Amino acid sequence: MDEARLTALVHGVLPANAADPARVRAHLDRLTKPPGSLGRVEDLAVRLARVYGDPPPPLRRREIFLLAADHGVAARGVSAYPSAVTAQMCHNLAAGGAAINAITSAVDARLTIMDIGVDADLREVGGVLHAKVRRGTRDLSREAAMTATEVVRAIEIGARSVEARIEHLDVVGLGEIGIGNTTSASALTAALTGHPPEALVGPGTGISDARLALKRRIVSEAVRRLPPDADPLAALAQVGGLEIAGLVGVVLGAARGRRAIVLDGFIATVAAMVAVLLCPHVRDYLIAAHRSTEPGHRILLERLDLTPLLELDLRLGEGTGAALAFPLLEAAAAVLREMATFDGAGISGPDAPGPEVSVR
Amino acid sequence: MDEARLTALVHGVLPANAADPARVRAHLDRLTKPPGSLGRVEDLAVRLARVYGDPPPPLRRREIFLLAADHGVAARGVSAYPSAVTAQMCHNLAAGGAAINAITSAVDARLTIMDIGVDADLREVGGVLHAKVRRGTRDLSREAAMTATEVVRAIEIGARSVEARIEHLDVVGLGEIGIGNTTSASALTAALTGHPPEALVGPGTGISDARLALKRRIVSEAVRRLPPDADPLAALAQVGGLEIAGLVGVVLGAARGRRAIVLDGFIATVAAMVAVLLCPHVRDYLIAAHRSTEPGHRILLERLDLTPLLELDLRLGEGTGAALAFPLLEAAAAVLREMATFDGAGISGPDAPGPEVSVR
Repeated sequence: MDEARLTALVHGVLPANAADPARVRAHLDRLTKPPGSLGRVEDLAVRLARVYGDPPPPLRRREIFLLAADHGVAARGVSAYPSAVTAQMCHNLAAGGAAINAITSAVDARLTIMDIGVDADLREVGGVLHAKVRRGTRDLSREAAMTATEVVRAIEIGARSVEARIEHLDVVGLGEIGIGNTTSASALTAALTGHPPEALVGPGTGISDARLALKRRIVSEAVRRLPPDADPLAALAQVGGLEIAGLVGVVLGAARGRRAIVLDGFIATVAAMVAVLLCPHVRDYLIAAHRSTEPGHRILLERLDLTPLLELDLRLGEGTGAALAFPLLEAAAAVLREMATFDGAGISGPDAPGPEVSVR
Repeated sequence: MDEARLTALVHGVLPANAADPARVRAHLDRLTKPPGSLGRVEDLAVRLARVYGDPPPPLRRREIFLLAADHGVAARGVSAYPSAVTAQMCHNLAAGGAAINAITSAVDARLTIMDIGVDADLREVGGVLHAKVRRGTRDLSREAAMTATEVVRAIEIGARSVEARIEHLDVVGLGEIGIGNTTSASALTAALTGHPPEALVGPGTGISDARLALKRRIVSEAVRRLPPDADPLAALAQVGGLEIAGLVGVVLGAARGRRAIVLDGFIATVAAMVAVLLCPHVRDYLIAAHRSTEPGHRILLERLDLTPLLELDLRLGEGTGAALAFPLLEAAAAVLREMATFDGAGISGPDAPGPEVSVR
């Protein structure tokens, strides 16, 4: 892929305007329930109507795109787990033993697993798509994690993977695995938002105080290396990851294909942030699944002005939060699609003729 | 039913001890994910293991028991809707046009609709079970809403309805409809918890300030009529509702049948509170689906020491919150049932030999 293709991808994302939000709200208020009584499910219904029209079609074909890659910075000891775990987990994912396997099976979602940069040869692993850009990023604590060409190639791979499936899915969920990737996501979030890195860095998979102090120092130094006006792609190249760049592509491809995109945790959300900075219309397609315990995730959700559906203190990644939120989307769509109106069902609306306030 | 049958029902509820919580926690920590990284899904898994064993079976046969009844107090004008809406909504439910129809269909749950006290003849309405105790309660602002016999009969009906289905379902969800029932639930909550009624009364389906003031006064006066040491059944008779009493029976029947019980909003939760007061073991089977905007609901959840899974600002009832939470139960069960362990999958655990913190 070249820059022209990236430009075409970005320009291919149109605003989500398949329904007028005010008309959808009015429709929701005519349905046989007290106005507003479905709370945030109604907000979700409005968002889905903008993407798919009012009423939205069934949203049962949901798919997690889980991208796996390694990070050179993991050699510095920023994670409680060694890099080898990324490849080991790909075997586990292919065998059906990971959390996201259990959860996608529970909610009837499809799982696509892609090696976009694992530092191991996974070509013999059935069930894993092979689209490796390189075996792990370079160590972002010392040099740029990726070249500009590698970034664009990863975005392209992500976009193509979702475009190849677009006619077979209604909803896209973001998933990832990559030892060291909260370090990368923290640095990228600081670069994109200007937020002080110290406040962004969290415990990731769970690390000791010594590792946390090191992670903070590495993130701060890496961010300092970036010019203050670095564009999103330059920041991605310096401190990002191959799975993050790939997810930027998944987001762009899904938005271009007019599908709702369910975020997961910190890593997936920073990828969505990059995509929004490349093309603001992307935001119309985003749905925040949950708010993880990572401080950087909260900052990104605020910046994107997204309120998550679930508050379950998840911090796993893999797309687990996105998958857990999938059924809520179909529920919200079904409300618009299947519910009767007060008029249609012959039901008395609020404060219709009936008992006045009776003070005896 | 007589008191003996109620006693048998209550004594038939055994503690949920199909798995030892500490062992389940240890099992969760061996699974291929950072310890604790599934947050409250792990707490839910522990609770389910106590009910069903570790691992729990698939929990896909989920069913909402929606009980409908009228309230004499509705004639005072405590709701924005006239009493007739309860019967109209039963027609709508039977025709598939209500919110709970859309949501149960979206999450693949069964819906049982029961007339336990609607003030209309619904015998010709297909899809509604007919188990009417009487046509609405008496006006709780003036007299006892039900006789002790009516209360016990409603409990019995609720228990029998779930017992008849117990072999065909894995999970029970509570639903209700009844114009005026937040007034009844507020009075009952005040009576059961000793909480000042003024702080408990909320807007229900959404009412004017004048109606809200009247509702507060009616609830306060009704509660004052009760002796301070009223037992739960006496309080239920004075200020409860037929659907609330029926749901007490659903809860007791489901707990006796060793099924997890997913609460819904304020009305369902006050019924669960009565059941817990009749038999403390019931609490082992309860799962809070969501926290509604009704202040009384929050107070009950605290009293029951239950943390809800969803925070979606719902205030509809019908079992909508319970149904939205159903997929999370199967996801939590699948985590215990399907995930590999670090040892079994040959994956390096946290802080296994790998990169030490490297300070260069």
